[in-house]
Amino acid sequence: MTDYRIEVRVTPREGLLDPQGRAVETALTSLGFDGVESVRIGKLVRMRVEAASEPEAMSRAREMCDRLIANPVIEDYSIRILDENNGDAGGGDA
Amino acid sequence: MTDYRIEVRVTPREGLLDPQGRAVETALTSLGFDGVESVRIGKLVRMRVEAASEPEAMSRAREMCDRLIANPVIEDYSIRILDENNGDAGGGDA
Repeated sequence: MTDYRIEVRVTPREGLLDPQGRAVETALTSLGFDGVESVRIGKLVRMRVEAASEPEAMSRAREMCDRLIANPVIEDYSIRILDENNGDAGGGDA
Repeated sequence: MTDYRIEVRVTPREGLLDPQGRAVETALTSLGFDGVESVRIGKLVRMRVEAASEPEAMSRAREMCDRLIANPVIEDYSIRILDENNGDAGGGDA
């Protein structure tokens, strides 16, 4: 079994209202930041998942998203496996 | 002025407790997902920012992070400009 570093991006579905994003947009405007729009806020979940192979890790992560991490009615998600050789693969400009 | 699509990743700082991540980890274990650990939950903010150039867009986004979007005491953030030619640049393996 290998430990896979997994990153899940959960985003509000296109077309659906995102009240949190709307609130941030209003707050930014109040702070004097003009020309900011379409603010959408999602979740970024990172975890280590034990699995026998990459496909198994992906499939376990998908199941976790469907059952707990994302709400498929209002959110989309995408999963990727982070490079084990790079301690902070997801944090940069990758 | 150009509209830049910007993505901000806000993550709990290394070494700091992440209660939300801990709660998800516990919930996943209760659901029968073994071998899941180091769950950390951050925010993924996407927005359109009007600016004269990419460096200006980046600098405006940094200011927004420092003043509103991230809490620098407990969170790190990274900013990137999404490819305008790709409607969903941030959703894939990029």
